[in-house]
Amino acid sequence: MEPNPFDKDCPTRQLLDRIGDQWTVLIVLTLSGGPLRFTEIGKRVEGISQKMLTQTLRSLVRDGMLGRTAYPVIPPRVEYELTPLGRELVEPLAMLERWATGHMDQVLEARDTFDQEHARFTA
Amino acid sequence: MEPNPFDKDCPTRQLLDRIGDQWTVLIVLTLSGGPLRFTEIGKRVEGISQKMLTQTLRSLVRDGMLGRTAYPVIPPRVEYELTPLGRELVEPLAMLERWATGHMDQVLEARDTFDQEHARFTA
Repeated sequence: MEPNPFDKDCPTRQLLDRIGDQWTVLIVLTLSGGPLRFTEIGKRVEGISQKMLTQTLRSLVRDGMLGRTAYPVIPPRVEYELTPLGRELVEPLAMLERWATGHMDQVLEARDTFDQEHARFTA
Repeated sequence: MEPNPFDKDCPTRQLLDRIGDQWTVLIVLTLSGGPLRFTEIGKRVEGISQKMLTQTLRSLVRDGMLGRTAYPVIPPRVEYELTPLGRELVEPLAMLERWATGHMDQVLEARDTFDQEHARFTA
């Protein structure tokens, strides 16, 4: 079967949703600079909960995009880094992030116009 | 303020999440071929519910990515098409979709390996 996310039963649809998730985007871009510890990632991706960070990292490791290394030191030290597969995701996600930051003004303007027009219709 | 999705209070974070949503990706890519009617979009994006299609289209119109034209005919006919802003989103989303379809095998393999190793540890 050809992978096709328009087909509701194709696993690419769920993968597509997962790689576009805000936490995936921010974590992968954070790690594009090199390996980081759990707590460092949490600090850079402001506002992510401990639970969401744990879940997202685990799912990225399971999907083969991140490697996880636990160092046998006290206190325990766990580092995450992009695998070659994860590194290939950096450019598409960076494009997405550039689109969002580069077009935020236009989107906010469009929302204002839409809300004003809608208020007029329902007034 | 510079737009920065790593800042939890910046609106780019929510925008980033929205443009990476599976329904947004599939609808924008579907419309990259030209304007389509509501029902046609629903048919191509297999398995999307009427409610989710309505909500996603409305939010894409509000964000300025889609135009909506209602023709005064019987039965009523409503068409959606990408705006210039929406067309600029096609390439980043197409890249994301190509990544997902092109790397699905590697991801499935990584999941198998992870699950086997994990089963061994907990056995």
